[in-house]
Amino acid sequence: MESAIKTIVTTFLKSAGGKDNLSPKAFQKLVQKQFSGVMEDTDSSAAIMEMQKGLDENSDGKVSFQEYLTLIGYVANTMSQKHCEPKEAAS
Amino acid sequence: MESAIKTIVTTFLKSAGGKDNLSPKAFQKLVQKQFSGVMEDTDSSAAIMEMQKGLDENSDGKVSFQEYLTLIGYVANTMSQKHCEPKEAAS
Repeated sequence: MESAIKTIVTTFLKSAGGKDNLSPKAFQKLVQKQFSGVMEDTDSSAAIMEMQKGLDENSDGKVSFQEYLTLIGYVANTMSQKHCEPKEAAS
Repeated sequence: MESAIKTIVTTFLKSAGGKDNLSPKAFQKLVQKQFSGVMEDTDSSAAIMEMQKGLDENSDGKVSFQEYLTLIGYVANTMSQKHCEPKEAAS
């Protein structure tokens, strides 16, 4: 588990290139590269921009580490719900 | 990254044994097993109980998936701060 959390941290730090926040461009790249398998519309920059606005609690136009963790929480929630959905009853 | 988030989700689901929440005992076991390398006092059940109280936003005596994600956020924050601390200047 520790290495899983480390992956989440280092992915942010690498994408932020040493800064504290992700620029819109860096956020686009991160979402397209990391979440194409679990999110829809990752090929639409407009959709990613909408997502970024939704995360941007302090409206500074960037994504902080806290706001990024909120995104991780959404993805984790989606995965856990998919995991708990009853498999189609055998016909 | 997807597999990292999947690890975080499945670790909760396995520890919860199919229920929606972690019992105090399941939470103790999870913390001792998963976080002994990044947290102090994981060998103290009193310290883990304190941590659980701190996470237990709805005070139901259990740890929900949301409260668990808050813990993951704390651990991720600790790791990212450690990562950004300047290495001791070469003497």
